[in-house]
Amino acid sequence: MAVYTQLSNEAIGEWLQAHYALGTLDFAIGIAQGVENTNYLLALCDAQGAEQKYILTLYEKRTRAEDLPFFLGLMQHLAARGVVCPQPIARTDGQVLSDIGGKRAALISFLHGKSRTVMRNQHTAQVGMALGKLHLAAQDFSGTRANALSLAGWQALHETVAPRLDEIQPGLQALIRDELQFLKEHWPQDHSLPRGVIHADLFPDNVFFTGDEVSGVIDFYFACTDFFAYDLAITLNAWCFEGRECNITKMQHMVKQYQQQRLLNDAEKKALPMLLRGAALRFLLTRAHDWLFHEKSALVTPKDPLEYVAKLRFHQANNDASIYGV
Amino acid sequence: MAVYTQLSNEAIGEWLQAHYALGTLDFAIGIAQGVENTNYLLALCDAQGAEQKYILTLYEKRTRAEDLPFFLGLMQHLAARGVVCPQPIARTDGQVLSDIGGKRAALISFLHGKSRTVMRNQHTAQVGMALGKLHLAAQDFSGTRANALSLAGWQALHETVAPRLDEIQPGLQALIRDELQFLKEHWPQDHSLPRGVIHADLFPDNVFFTGDEVSGVIDFYFACTDFFAYDLAITLNAWCFEGRECNITKMQHMVKQYQQQRLLNDAEKKALPMLLRGAALRFLLTRAHDWLFHEKSALVTPKDPLEYVAKLRFHQANNDASIYGV
Repeated sequence: MAVYTQLSNEAIGEWLQAHYALGTLDFAIGIAQGVENTNYLLALCDAQGAEQKYILTLYEKRTRAEDLPFFLGLMQHLAARGVVCPQPIARTDGQVLSDIGGKRAALISFLHGKSRTVMRNQHTAQVGMALGKLHLAAQDFSGTRANALSLAGWQALHETVAPRLDEIQPGLQALIRDELQFLKEHWPQDHSLPRGVIHADLFPDNVFFTGDEVSGVIDFYFACTDFFAYDLAITLNAWCFEGRECNITKMQHMVKQYQQQRLLNDAEKKALPMLLRGAALRFLLTRAHDWLFHEKSALVTPKDPLEYVAKLRFHQANNDASIYGV
Repeated sequence: MAVYTQLSNEAIGEWLQAHYALGTLDFAIGIAQGVENTNYLLALCDAQGAEQKYILTLYEKRTRAEDLPFFLGLMQHLAARGVVCPQPIARTDGQVLSDIGGKRAALISFLHGKSRTVMRNQHTAQVGMALGKLHLAAQDFSGTRANALSLAGWQALHETVAPRLDEIQPGLQALIRDELQFLKEHWPQDHSLPRGVIHADLFPDNVFFTGDEVSGVIDFYFACTDFFAYDLAITLNAWCFEGRECNITKMQHMVKQYQQQRLLNDAEKKALPMLLRGAALRFLLTRAHDWLFHEKSALVTPKDPLEYVAKLRFHQANNDASIYGV
């Protein structure tokens, strides 16, 4: 939970008056959810006296300023193609980015709905469908952004964390070293699989439901250019384990509904077990890093890396894509 | 900033369905502001399809469960007498307190408006008026609660912090020891001054404004029975210093408008400089305690105790109540 940058109501109100014609600030609430950036819920009173809600996002150090046009442009592109997601609100001068509190910032539309923590098959099916639609809608987006957390990024992260991995769990150093070597030898080569813009972080926190239906997708600040099927692998890992146990039925539901939108080709199907291993290693490495190097005074409790050890071990033992119903 | 107790949307939704007939949960947002308790903003969709907002407060360890009926009863009492403040929402079984996430909790009405950080004379005048009205409205409240942070409480706190006070600033140990001795000898005796229920924490965070007018008062979780004029002293200290400089004009505005509601008697006027010293020491002691003993991993950054050293020194040098315009 995190509000890294504290803003007074006066500072928010003056910024709104200077750059927008949306009404007057009724209240501003710092949002505890979220780990990367600072978010405020703003309620404005418009000219008709009606309350309108927005999100003010301040981009903190882990989001690079030069990537912001890609992220915000993607959100606009997706929304124009029917993907329900937050959209940046242009200022009266046409700009979407501002400076406030010493940070780059944007006013974003507010998305109703709420995330789930209890998932049934139908919810993972819904998420598969939403991901397929997102990939189709992103296909003609002109922006590109290299995935800093693919094979080269994993190797760099590994050099940082390797000496201390056994502090988390004895044997973890060897497990990750060997897995990284395996993936270096077997990871799909560029262009061997269909690529495009992927969400790359479609965890349950980032999907809103109304009742049992997906009502929206948020948090595009890891979006990048990579294999579509790798995004599916990240999402399968994020939604279809119960504790440390894989629920194959949930995976099948997600894959099936994804394919109702976008059919996987033979190369993607064949690669899926490998992509699931890579997706598990990617989150294992970043969680291990945050676990070992987070400041003790930080606002955010690091997530458990061992959850992803279990996921990696599951995928190491299964190289048959057919169990996922592809 | 703090959400100490994480609740899933499902847990909140099920609790609402079990105990209220207010509608269905649209969204729940953990609120970063606040240091003592966990607060969620809840938006519900009522039977007419309209959005209604509430605050769900979970009482954390610093709020004692046995005090909750006093706090919640006071809020109901004040609201019935025209003080705009949050009110507990009774469940369908008539209870206002619940158990959720292992904590005692209450659903509270949502108060529009926003706090100020930039104060002009008119704002301190408004706050004086609001405090006077609050004291009058609380006069016939039947509940009582001893002030755990009066003279005896200061002595207990002092024993804990004294050995380490000079870590904060050399000389602080002697300053506080001498001041505590002075106050033990001079603090007004019970019943020498009018007493009743006081807010005891009317800091800028806890007062909402619409434009330049006070629109509501929140956070009654320090309310207790003590001298009315001591509450005025706490509030003067909280609002009328600019950095470490006292703005006497602001104090005069606050006192004048307070007296438009409730006239201070001669004993209260005479005691005011002493009460200001006690009010400064009380917050100096608790801030010093939190500064020295907060967990490094805590979600809340402790407030600067030295701000209250400056306030205490100002009041030590001024024992003439007339400068406050009483």
